Amino acid sequence: MAKIVTMGELLVRLSTINYERFTQAERLDVCYGGSEANVAVSLAGFGHESVYITKLPRNPIAETAAQTLRKYGVDTSKIAWGGTRMGLYFLEQGQGYRSSNVVYDRADSAMSLAQPDDFSFDEIFAGADWFHFSGITPAISRSAAKLTLEAVKAAKRNGLTVSCDLNFRKKLWTIEQARSVMPELMKYTDVCMGGREDAVKMLGFSLSERNEDDTPNLPAYEEMFRSMVEKYSFSYVACSMRRSHTASDNELSGLLYDGHKLYQAKNYRMAPMVDRVGGGDAFAAGMISAILRDKPPQEAVDFAAAASVLKHTIPGDFNLVTTEEVEALMNGKKFGRVAR
Amino acid sequence: MAKIVTMGELLVRLSTINYERFTQAERLDVCYGGSEANVAVSLAGFGHESVYITKLPRNPIAETAAQTLRKYGVDTSKIAWGGTRMGLYFLEQGQGYRSSNVVYDRADSAMSLAQPDDFSFDEIFAGADWFHFSGITPAISRSAAKLTLEAVKAAKRNGLTVSCDLNFRKKLWTIEQARSVMPELMKYTDVCMGGREDAVKMLGFSLSERNEDDTPNLPAYEEMFRSMVEKYSFSYVACSMRRSHTASDNELSGLLYDGHKLYQAKNYRMAPMVDRVGGGDAFAAGMISAILRDKPPQEAVDFAAAASVLKHTIPGDFNLVTTEEVEALMNGKKFGRVAR
Amino acid sequence: MAKIVTMGELLVRLSTINYERFTQAERLDVCYGGSEANVAVSLAGFGHESVYITKLPRNPIAETAAQTLRKYGVDTSKIAWGGTRMGLYFLEQGQGYRSSNVVYDRADSAMSLAQPDDFSFDEIFAGADWFHFSGITPAISRSAAKLTLEAVKAAKRNGLTVSCDLNFRKKLWTIEQARSVMPELMKYTDVCMGGREDAVKMLGFSLSERNEDDTPNLPAYEEMFRSMVEKYSFSYVACSMRRSHTASDNELSGLLYDGHKLYQAKNYRMAPMVDRVGGGDAFAAGMISAILRDKPPQEAVDFAAAASVLKHTIPGDFNLVTTEEVEALMNGKKFGRVAR
Amino acid sequence: MAKIVTMGELLVRLSTINYERFTQAERLDVCYGGSEANVAVSLAGFGHESVYITKLPRNPIAETAAQTLRKYGVDTSKIAWGGTRMGLYFLEQGQGYRSSNVVYDRADSAMSLAQPDDFSFDEIFAGADWFHFSGITPAISRSAAKLTLEAVKAAKRNGLTVSCDLNFRKKLWTIEQARSVMPELMKYTDVCMGGREDAVKMLGFSLSERNEDDTPNLPAYEEMFRSMVEKYSFSYVACSMRRSHTASDNELSGLLYDGHKLYQAKNYRMAPMVDRVGGGDAFAAGMISAILRDKPPQEAVDFAAAASVLKHTIPGDFNLVTTEEVEALMNGKKFGRVAR
Amino acid sequence: MAKIVTMGELLVRLSTINYERFTQAERLDVCYGGSEANVAVSLAGFGHESVYITKLPRNPIAETAAQTLRKYGVDTSKIAWGGTRMGLYFLEQGQGYRSSNVVYDRADSAMSLAQPDDFSFDEIFAGADWFHFSGITPAISRSAAKLTLEAVKAAKRNGLTVSCDLNFRKKLWTIEQARSVMPELMKYTDVCMGGREDAVKMLGFSLSERNEDDTPNLPAYEEMFRSMVEKYSFSYVACSMRRSHTASDNELSGLLYDGHKLYQAKNYRMAPMVDRVGGGDAFAAGMISAILRDKPPQEAVDFAAAASVLKHTIPGDFNLVTTEEVEALMNGKKFGRVAR
Amino acid sequence: MAKIVTMGELLVRLSTINYERFTQAERLDVCYGGSEANVAVSLAGFGHESVYITKLPRNPIAETAAQTLRKYGVDTSKIAWGGTRMGLYFLEQGQGYRSSNVVYDRADSAMSLAQPDDFSFDEIFAGADWFHFSGITPAISRSAAKLTLEAVKAAKRNGLTVSCDLNFRKKLWTIEQARSVMPELMKYTDVCMGGREDAVKMLGFSLSERNEDDTPNLPAYEEMFRSMVEKYSFSYVACSMRRSHTASDNELSGLLYDGHKLYQAKNYRMAPMVDRVGGGDAFAAGMISAILRDKPPQEAVDFAAAASVLKHTIPGDFNLVTTEEVEALMNGKKFGRVAR
Repeated sequence: MAKIVTMGELLVRLSTINYERFTQAERLDVCYGGSEANVAVSLAGFGHESVYITKLPRNPIAETAAQTLRKYGVDTSKIAWGGTRMGLYFLEQGQGYRSSNVVYDRADSAMSLAQPDDFSFDEIFAGADWFHFSGITPAISRSAAKLTLEAVKAAKRNGLTVSCDLNFRKKLWTIEQARSVMPELMKYTDVCMGGREDAVKMLGFSLSERNEDDTPNLPAYEEMFRSMVEKYSFSYVACSMRRSHTASDNELSGLLYDGHKLYQAKNYRMAPMVDRVGGGDAFAAGMISAILRDKPPQEAVDFAAAASVLKHTIPGDFNLVTTEEVEALMNGKKFGRVAR
Repeated sequence: MAKIVTMGELLVRLSTINYERFTQAERLDVCYGGSEANVAVSLAGFGHESVYITKLPRNPIAETAAQTLRKYGVDTSKIAWGGTRMGLYFLEQGQGYRSSNVVYDRADSAMSLAQPDDFSFDEIFAGADWFHFSGITPAISRSAAKLTLEAVKAAKRNGLTVSCDLNFRKKLWTIEQARSVMPELMKYTDVCMGGREDAVKMLGFSLSERNEDDTPNLPAYEEMFRSMVEKYSFSYVACSMRRSHTASDNELSGLLYDGHKLYQAKNYRMAPMVDRVGGGDAFAAGMISAILRDKPPQEAVDFAAAASVLKHTIPGDFNLVTTEEVEALMNGKKFGRVAR
Repeated sequence: MAKIVTMGELLVRLSTINYERFTQAERLDVCYGGSEANVAVSLAGFGHESVYITKLPRNPIAETAAQTLRKYGVDTSKIAWGGTRMGLYFLEQGQGYRSSNVVYDRADSAMSLAQPDDFSFDEIFAGADWFHFSGITPAISRSAAKLTLEAVKAAKRNGLTVSCDLNFRKKLWTIEQARSVMPELMKYTDVCMGGREDAVKMLGFSLSERNEDDTPNLPAYEEMFRSMVEKYSFSYVACSMRRSHTASDNELSGLLYDGHKLYQAKNYRMAPMVDRVGGGDAFAAGMISAILRDKPPQEAVDFAAAASVLKHTIPGDFNLVTTEEVEALMNGKKFGRVAR
Repeated sequence: MAKIVTMGELLVRLSTINYERFTQAERLDVCYGGSEANVAVSLAGFGHESVYITKLPRNPIAETAAQTLRKYGVDTSKIAWGGTRMGLYFLEQGQGYRSSNVVYDRADSAMSLAQPDDFSFDEIFAGADWFHFSGITPAISRSAAKLTLEAVKAAKRNGLTVSCDLNFRKKLWTIEQARSVMPELMKYTDVCMGGREDAVKMLGFSLSERNEDDTPNLPAYEEMFRSMVEKYSFSYVACSMRRSHTASDNELSGLLYDGHKLYQAKNYRMAPMVDRVGGGDAFAAGMISAILRDKPPQEAVDFAAAASVLKHTIPGDFNLVTTEEVEALMNGKKFGRVAR
Repeated sequence: MAKIVTMGELLVRLSTINYERFTQAERLDVCYGGSEANVAVSLAGFGHESVYITKLPRNPIAETAAQTLRKYGVDTSKIAWGGTRMGLYFLEQGQGYRSSNVVYDRADSAMSLAQPDDFSFDEIFAGADWFHFSGITPAISRSAAKLTLEAVKAAKRNGLTVSCDLNFRKKLWTIEQARSVMPELMKYTDVCMGGREDAVKMLGFSLSERNEDDTPNLPAYEEMFRSMVEKYSFSYVACSMRRSHTASDNELSGLLYDGHKLYQAKNYRMAPMVDRVGGGDAFAAGMISAILRDKPPQEAVDFAAAASVLKHTIPGDFNLVTTEEVEALMNGKKFGRVAR
Repeated sequence: MAKIVTMGELLVRLSTINYERFTQAERLDVCYGGSEANVAVSLAGFGHESVYITKLPRNPIAETAAQTLRKYGVDTSKIAWGGTRMGLYFLEQGQGYRSSNVVYDRADSAMSLAQPDDFSFDEIFAGADWFHFSGITPAISRSAAKLTLEAVKAAKRNGLTVSCDLNFRKKLWTIEQARSVMPELMKYTDVCMGGREDAVKMLGFSLSERNEDDTPNLPAYEEMFRSMVEKYSFSYVACSMRRSHTASDNELSGLLYDGHKLYQAKNYRMAPMVDRVGGGDAFAAGMISAILRDKPPQEAVDFAAAASVLKHTIPGDFNLVTTEEVEALMNGKKFGRVAR
């Protein structure tokens, strides 16, 4: 199986349990995640050789975070160690008409202060097939933006395919800041992914309104994707499509444009969901894996969407599923029976 | 913000977890609540000055109950201390087609035996704007009924607006008993609230059947509310409207009549719900807060309904939400996204 | 009330909590169950005299399993003690589009190695009205198949009504193996129950396709049931009907054929469910109880379906409900209100 | 094995976990117990036929309490059902220098209001060998005191041995009240047990001071026991001896006087302990079982003390141990090894 | 009762449960604490009017922290709101020969960046009797050191007694840094408290070695305390004395010097302990309360030590005990009995 | 650091929590362990390259077991996959005078049926320095005994040092069976470890009685170790020394004989303990690591004993500690302080 390198910030996540509000919580679930780490775990679960790079401080919390990645099959031997803290966030899990709430505390993390010489990119990329990053990494600090640029350059230099999940985070930077950084990174990117409005916000493309019946305007998407390919020569543009009815009831689908045609995945109604954090990362990982396994576009987008749907049934950030489980869902007609 | 006094019985609630039946339970969640205490916490959460009065025995369980109210911003300094026990109840949380089940054990509570001289009403009401009670308080004992009458008289004497949530509880008294007590209390009441059939049962009004399609017969409600206003000179009559499909799937809306016109709130489908106890109290608190903030009737009933809907997402009796959160729901079009 | 004897294997069930996958689990819920034990507990809950026989090893795990049955009113005094282990299984509870997953570890259990002389059938059946077994028991081993045959013969010899829940388990035996054993057992069976395709797989009957709109083809069922009655002289043939939309969203109904006419129960949409294991056993127990209480066929199948629906709201294998609770559901129009 | 009947009040116990104080508790462990019920469970565990009688209200909490007794092998078929509530108490588990704290809420329980005609004593005692009660039962109400007197008279009339564990509870009655009731009951008692000062307080005997080194003054005990035997013709007088260093560090031993000689059990230092509630009941049950099995006095008091010591390692009120486990401790030289 | 103001940083504490190491933890207990907040809660529990000042960011985690203080009776109305984060730390609870381990993450907290104009000290101190701070507050940042100096000056200006718990934290500053800040603060301090070596490290006093039998060298302490009083004119110098045998087995006592004589508290062996964090703060609060209640020195140090001992039995940072409970321990001879 | 290979059976452990007896348990902690796996995790924690070989069935439980080893740094890439089940055991955690209780269910595990050709020993041992096994592995089955012999031969052939922890398990085989297998294995063993009586039982050596004061008879040990070295040419003989006062109170020390002299480690009193399973494996891992790091004998046995002591503070089978932590304990004078 192919070898993929991902790079990003690894966060401690402290989330409420039993639908409690923060003010009621006496215990918090602790887990670890971050967009690119989530992709790395997913890819390891699909059987790929998965390498994750970040910078972590030398303390037992960060060591536990790395051990957890290792548990799920990710190669953590290239992680840089140093700095003083991990970023963390508190997550109040929403329910029904109460949305989830996040309190970020991620300033000055080891990764946000990392420098290019913390990583031997040419050594890390040797023998690798693919490099993946998300728009969160350049957003966390100026030095992280520089680091990301160094990384994508090194990846291209070493012949890797580069993918980016745009992932606009308005709590981390403004639209203007994003637009001053992301276009340069796109020049080195082969596969561009994102949520519905990320390319609009971060790269300045325009997307027509939704249809009157609130369904996505597919021709408008195709038009935008075509412009994106024209401008940046992307091999693929992909997009996960979520519709949130309540915090417990979402629909999920996805689109893939291969430069020629737009492919839409089946639409799933997920009600209730266990944990929606990491759903987009699961989509990205599914897409990367499918492309690496030379699946045709329709299969690729179906695989990515089904992978993302399964993520919503699993607590924590990670999509702990196998290729076989995703294929069973994407091909299946019936769900929910106990196999016995 | 306005100052509101509420009076009632505070109960220990012991509820099953993880959908267990009583016979399976080895642990119980313990929390504290009661119709008027729930209203008091809600109002404090909305930023009002909220005073709760009751009578509690001097033991660490009751002290914990009072501390919990204090945590959520309720002024507990006027509570009377004495008597021998708090009322309590066991709650088996229902799910799907299995309804919740309550085992009450509230006889002879300190509050049910409280006397008017346990409270210095004129001192308590000094500087206050509003007094709220529910039909549960006069139902728990004859002396509590007398106490309630003393309280409403003192409230009117001190110029407070008085509201009552009728809240008929058939396990506490009969329709006949209710009808011998409540009409007198209504004479001192300005804002009368209740569930769908409370005014029929407790005050003897009549309400035509539901429409054939099982939707509420709005003209019939308006007719009844008009009669209520005529008889008792209420400023407002309000009513929360719940439709229970299963224990996990309810609809919720509400009505408000301002003496002139009937206003209906948006209807919410809540599936699944975390905890439906306290949903009516959240509606009452929302209504009181909106009226105190001089909101127009449509906004008031929308605010009350949205507040109640949020309550169903929070474990325990209390509606731990802010005005901003309720307004976000009542104005919002989209729900369930993680803000990040 | 009537006295019923059931016989089967009792299993230790170790299931994940909070929707975790196996790889995330640090704690497992432990409970005990098995098709016939589940029926026995249900029947005791309905007020019948319920006797369960099995073989268990002398260790504290097995003793706990027996104590748990005794807690719920089952007579465990006829259990044979010996052998070295109980069968067990790990259950990963599914959610949404992720199905539940079972890892069986039940080879060489005490019951799978039990011999006819472990039980004094004539003594056990003395004074009893009914004997129930499922198709799982003869599937666990050749000796268990022999034991089952001895049991049904002894039951008929002692004048008991015999019921069987076909319960095909493809992880225990093949269709061919089932067809070499079950027909002989059917000769002694009066009431034959099963899921939608059990009679097809295990007894070789044929059933036409579903209707185009994916609803069950009732005339085809009636046709098959008539053939079954013709061949084996069953008094009743019954069938629970489940439609799995996702692991959290199922529909449930049931059919009963009394040799003359087909009766269909109300269809329930269960979303979400707490625990679907034991749903079929709850249906079987409801049917047995209704027949023993001489209910007309429509009531019997309605009772069985409502009993099964309630099971889906209760964690663990056992349907811990009373006759009154089942009747309230089957007769009721409204659900989910808190009685207070 | 012998058949023993015990009678008393069954209480719901709600206890804090993880060493929390009441004010910190969001969850409580729920279990069931009561002095005589604890003895009944212990005796069933030792293999005796154990019958427990009490009066319980018809609600699911009380039914669960009875089911729990049944789980542990106690015959609950003679329980009287009626009344409106079970007694309950909140238990704050102490630790180290912080003592446990109890908040009782047991007034007006079904058992405290029970009448002699709730029980058919002659039928209940038919075939039984022994009747046991504690001084708690006559303390809970005047009618319970009368009921107890009826019970001991009936027991003697039916030829049973009668034992009493004095168990003075100063929160239930005064020394004067106890002395007006207990002496009459002693006339029908054969085996009198109690803690160190119970006979002094409840029966008016006198006991010299402890030795200077704070060890028990054995000759003084022997003197008192001799007086007790002289006055009431007891066959045996027994006494558990506890020395509390802290809530986590106790010593436990016991004395037995057979009318001729004083026997002292080995002294155990228990540090830490899991749960000390029920330790005295475990001693009483051990003594009853040993006497019924005709053990010599030294063995009897050793068995009782070892049984009590094991209780302190088990959460809840019940001593869930076997005769073999008690004997292993009382005979053993080494403890704490894992048998594997 | 007297009114006391305390000022310091409030921290989120995330601690492992069930003796897990960090690497094993999937859940963490969340509580709130900090040396001066702990003192504030203790004083409120003793019945004093207790005001706590700090600076907290406007987010739900910090609001919960403040609500928790309010629950326990602390006046939080003077807290300054602003900044971006609370300090936090991860606590791995030790056991036996494994020490507890702390991972601090408190840089750039709102309080560490607070400025004197965040607080209206003259208004805050109006009507107050006492101001307490610890050596942790000036250690967290230069601006916090300045703020502390402003506070003590204002306290003296307003006629308050000032106490300081030296509390050297080597992870926050060096001995040299401490010595450049603390002496100036001591000029405004009336009551100086600390652990065994704090005055040596932070103020440069010297203390002779321990006795050969490892008991404290009392004359040496008295000598040092006399020097301290001479230099800074302290009214009292106090010192808690802990001897750690293992993480589960400590001895605790304390000393008080009133300018004339040294008083030593009883020595307690605490094994096991529930939570030792906050033990020193409980000692300080006990001392402040005793002095404010004009207790003679021996009683004061006994009260402080007994208060500290009780803290070790309670999970979390706070000493949730009453004056009566502390006095029961300090006067008592026997512990650990269940009062019933 | 050196590379060590260990081989053995990996078991699922299901243990009770909160000191419950099996009959009370509704939840069980699940973890994974086994003597050699525990050694492997320990060695990885000390920084060695650690390879574990076993045979596991292809199911998610076994995959989780392997992932858990990987989390803690063990190389699991040489594990053989096949067979149908993992061995498992239920562990009732003892407390005080109640010993722990184990219910084994490990027959027919994949490892017990493994064959030599499941492993490419020469490839596995290439580049490795040390091979470790325990006497449990040859005890589980005849084929496992053969497999072990093949392994030690291959290890010697490849120039590895071989160590064995004798670990007699009387539930797995008899003394006679052990003596028919172990001596042959000892021929290939360089470092022989065990508990106090393992060499007596399994190899037929004799050891004089303990001293009168129940302390170990050191000259007798030295005498036996000398005989062992004479017979089998061991480089080292080591022995952990445990004295169990209760299940919560043990002493632990150890001995090491280097062919010339006997070295005794410091004796630790451990009270209370968190989990004593794996204590012997922690001793063995400490010894192996110390020898590999060329520590002098006294340091080696001190390191091994301190490592074992730390294990008793950690839940589960694994000793999750670092070399630094062990050295801090073995060198330290003070314990239990919170570093802050």
